[in-house]
Amino acid sequence: MTRQTFTLTVSCPDKPGIIAAITGCIAKTGGNILNLAQHTATDIGSFFCRVSFAGTETFTEQSFSAEFAAIAASYAMEWHVFNDARKKKVAVLVSKTSHCLYEILLKHADGELDCEIPVIISNHPDLAHIASSFHIPFFQVDPAKGKTAYEADLEGILAQYGAELVVLARYMQVMSSDFCARWENRVINIHHGFLPAFKGAKPYHQAWQKGVKIIGATGHYATADLDQGPIIFQDVIRVADTCSVDEFIRMGKDVERRVLVEAVRRELSHSIFLHDGRTFVIE
Amino acid sequence: MTRQTFTLTVSCPDKPGIIAAITGCIAKTGGNILNLAQHTATDIGSFFCRVSFAGTETFTEQSFSAEFAAIAASYAMEWHVFNDARKKKVAVLVSKTSHCLYEILLKHADGELDCEIPVIISNHPDLAHIASSFHIPFFQVDPAKGKTAYEADLEGILAQYGAELVVLARYMQVMSSDFCARWENRVINIHHGFLPAFKGAKPYHQAWQKGVKIIGATGHYATADLDQGPIIFQDVIRVADTCSVDEFIRMGKDVERRVLVEAVRRELSHSIFLHDGRTFVIE
Amino acid sequence: MTRQTFTLTVSCPDKPGIIAAITGCIAKTGGNILNLAQHTATDIGSFFCRVSFAGTETFTEQSFSAEFAAIAASYAMEWHVFNDARKKKVAVLVSKTSHCLYEILLKHADGELDCEIPVIISNHPDLAHIASSFHIPFFQVDPAKGKTAYEADLEGILAQYGAELVVLARYMQVMSSDFCARWENRVINIHHGFLPAFKGAKPYHQAWQKGVKIIGATGHYATADLDQGPIIFQDVIRVADTCSVDEFIRMGKDVERRVLVEAVRRELSHSIFLHDGRTFVIE
Amino acid sequence: MTRQTFTLTVSCPDKPGIIAAITGCIAKTGGNILNLAQHTATDIGSFFCRVSFAGTETFTEQSFSAEFAAIAASYAMEWHVFNDARKKKVAVLVSKTSHCLYEILLKHADGELDCEIPVIISNHPDLAHIASSFHIPFFQVDPAKGKTAYEADLEGILAQYGAELVVLARYMQVMSSDFCARWENRVINIHHGFLPAFKGAKPYHQAWQKGVKIIGATGHYATADLDQGPIIFQDVIRVADTCSVDEFIRMGKDVERRVLVEAVRRELSHSIFLHDGRTFVIE
Repeated sequence: MTRQTFTLTVSCPDKPGIIAAITGCIAKTGGNILNLAQHTATDIGSFFCRVSFAGTETFTEQSFSAEFAAIAASYAMEWHVFNDARKKKVAVLVSKTSHCLYEILLKHADGELDCEIPVIISNHPDLAHIASSFHIPFFQVDPAKGKTAYEADLEGILAQYGAELVVLARYMQVMSSDFCARWENRVINIHHGFLPAFKGAKPYHQAWQKGVKIIGATGHYATADLDQGPIIFQDVIRVADTCSVDEFIRMGKDVERRVLVEAVRRELSHSIFLHDGRTFVIE
Repeated sequence: MTRQTFTLTVSCPDKPGIIAAITGCIAKTGGNILNLAQHTATDIGSFFCRVSFAGTETFTEQSFSAEFAAIAASYAMEWHVFNDARKKKVAVLVSKTSHCLYEILLKHADGELDCEIPVIISNHPDLAHIASSFHIPFFQVDPAKGKTAYEADLEGILAQYGAELVVLARYMQVMSSDFCARWENRVINIHHGFLPAFKGAKPYHQAWQKGVKIIGATGHYATADLDQGPIIFQDVIRVADTCSVDEFIRMGKDVERRVLVEAVRRELSHSIFLHDGRTFVIE
Repeated sequence: MTRQTFTLTVSCPDKPGIIAAITGCIAKTGGNILNLAQHTATDIGSFFCRVSFAGTETFTEQSFSAEFAAIAASYAMEWHVFNDARKKKVAVLVSKTSHCLYEILLKHADGELDCEIPVIISNHPDLAHIASSFHIPFFQVDPAKGKTAYEADLEGILAQYGAELVVLARYMQVMSSDFCARWENRVINIHHGFLPAFKGAKPYHQAWQKGVKIIGATGHYATADLDQGPIIFQDVIRVADTCSVDEFIRMGKDVERRVLVEAVRRELSHSIFLHDGRTFVIE
Repeated sequence: MTRQTFTLTVSCPDKPGIIAAITGCIAKTGGNILNLAQHTATDIGSFFCRVSFAGTETFTEQSFSAEFAAIAASYAMEWHVFNDARKKKVAVLVSKTSHCLYEILLKHADGELDCEIPVIISNHPDLAHIASSFHIPFFQVDPAKGKTAYEADLEGILAQYGAELVVLARYMQVMSSDFCARWENRVINIHHGFLPAFKGAKPYHQAWQKGVKIIGATGHYATADLDQGPIIFQDVIRVADTCSVDEFIRMGKDVERRVLVEAVRRELSHSIFLHDGRTFVIE
């Protein structure tokens, strides 16, 4: 029998003895630690920790949680324990460009994204054939009917498929503040610029105009403040001044798709801690 | 007898036949092309070209220039021809941190920066011993006496040593608009942030606060618009979220010194073309 | 009417006046240079040049070639002129892993690989569905019938579809010396290691065993000397010592697919010059 | 009163409960964990761990060690505890090139290398002035007198200055097997090639000849098997085919100096675990 594995995430004000308390509780309740990653952010006095562990025959999630709750209270911890067998349901939203969608579907097919993808939604019909070739339901929504009505349609589909995370894979619609608030920290967007520079429309044109020598992409949580949500992952590529804007766009596509998948992977592995508007990604 | 080598730079509106006209003139006047780099920026219809060539015994700079002037006129070219034997005089301005100054002096000593460094100027006495160990005159200027008086002192020293290029090697004083105008495109600054993001003071603190995953540095021409002058070179380094601000600063130093030297190297090799507020660096 | 564009490649011993001779001939026969890239390898006294140009109404390939032949003879040039409108026919060979095949097909569909892909051939049936979804004929060949018979089958299919270039997209069969000789410089392979280290089987296992801190992939021409043919493109990725061999394999896939496409792109743009067992790629 | 900090390193066969045992012992004996990094290498069933902790007023190194010895025995641990206040004595060996020596001295002066540098030794007099300007004793040894006599001189100086680690900063002499054995895992060398490719002499020439597109440097422990000792750190830089061998050498110097300092930094922070001929660097 394969034993179940779990992931515990903890964040709290820094204090002596936290790690011993956490690891002691896991050992006491019958868990075997597989991996522990921890960071004390001395600049802000915060502690972040992520522990993977396997449950032995005596381990139960209930008794662990009961035991851990007492520790958590004494250290003012924010904490979650995840059963790794439970896959998160991820809805993918797209418009007309396919490279980010393909990347997610191919990585998922290769077993490199540990989630379910129950539904793909778009404001255009163009990519329906890709959804179809991967046997995933595809829905078209219509922003032209007004933001409120259209977002209601969208959320209806998300609810129907039990979506827990929304990935904007070059989805070219700005979400309303209400939508962002309801889905806070559950929407990951790929921005095709190296944030915080070049937010908003046509970032590659902005970058070319400015004459930057390196371009990039940013995976971040969507917030009401456009392209300014907490950054999860970024990557860059050097460009020559002999490149045209079109070449920036072509070269940028490879960066975008990689960054988006890496951002989603970090979310799925519970590696992201949020604090005061920024992330701490602990790998 | 070693033959003299020259570098010709040309920029003009794009038209057919430019390269044949340039290379034909060089051949006709007794020059042998060693290297030709060229770029047609189709987004703006501009042509940029840099040619290195050796003069044979029949070649003279005067006859070449006379011959080339006619071609230049018919193509509306902006052009310069440089005798590579003539070294540019570069003044280095510093404050208290030494890593950029050391980098310039060590690269220069290793024959990797093709210029003279006749003088080092600072608003602090701290780095005088470095200038001394490299046998370069060192002057201290005093910003406390008021920007006008202090910049007059500075320009007096620059004039005395025949400085043609000023390198701000982590010089922590903002130059006046007048100074920037007089020295337009002749002052290279290193900014310890990935511009256009994080301009101004404490860019590493800004970057940490924002939670970016990659930090960088930017070598650029100084203009009256602080940290917004044309970008010459940039580089970046990936940072983990387990890094403190102090580690950003430490890691950034290596990027800064490399970027500054690469920016200066491009200036000295006549590889930088300016157009509409941005550079085209043709290597 | 859109004018036709051409690419001229030239390699020869270095001598004065080559560039003027080339560009003069293009101008004289009615060509307008769009881009010229050139390199003089001083270590070996060789000159390499690649020129893109557009033909005006007076330009014909025949008269250019006649005119250029005389110049070529006097400089001992090896040269080719390509009509850019003519697409090269590229056969893709695969085994069971799909990431390199998908990359080629997706980049081709996005207009980023300037060729035709008339056929996909494999020694396994596994990837037939991908060929089918991209509407490309798929053939299975059988190495079990003996190298000679099987390679005859293979070359029959290549002939039938007029293949001019063969891309080994993680094709797990070693080609015979005879095959490599017949297809010299027309077979591009992706090796999942940073050559010349780690040639042969299981390069990621070799790399892990050795404890290297960076892994890579190499796109190269296939020769009879396994994994030692001229290198076209390479890229790398930093790995942590906390990575398992399986993670090396996963991370390496992204490098492999990128390197293979970049190697093929350089071949298609006539940017590769071969000299004494190595390439000079002039971009 | 500032509390003392300690670093504990542990390696052993993987078993359940190790982390809880380690962290529990630290907590019990009055230590507060500041940072814990751990890796289970599943490919070989090995566990590696490095813990930084501060001692409270009740903590003593003796009582901790006594307590920990019992745990260590039951898990078959190899372990060490280091008092962070005790600086390692590092001897630097050089020949004629200065860039690696300067890098070490400048980083040390900036407080970025946590050690003492009591002595610099060379087989040439060329760099004596650098040692002098940093106020460090400099000795010249003479390989011409025969390997045995010369290495005896060398070890005499190392003993006189209490050297615990030897850094070969582009030292161009091969050490004898006996020397390597006596100083096993205590000599760090910088090789100017991306090992395991291009070992031995003139690696940049080898790389150029092969036409590789990326060059690198490797920091490793010196062993009797030349340039094949366990790798500590590596870095690379992309090169164009327009680069000459001399440019490889110039560009490589920046990589070499960075790699050497990073390798030494990892040694000084006790981050390197050796297992079966390779390192696991846990940061």
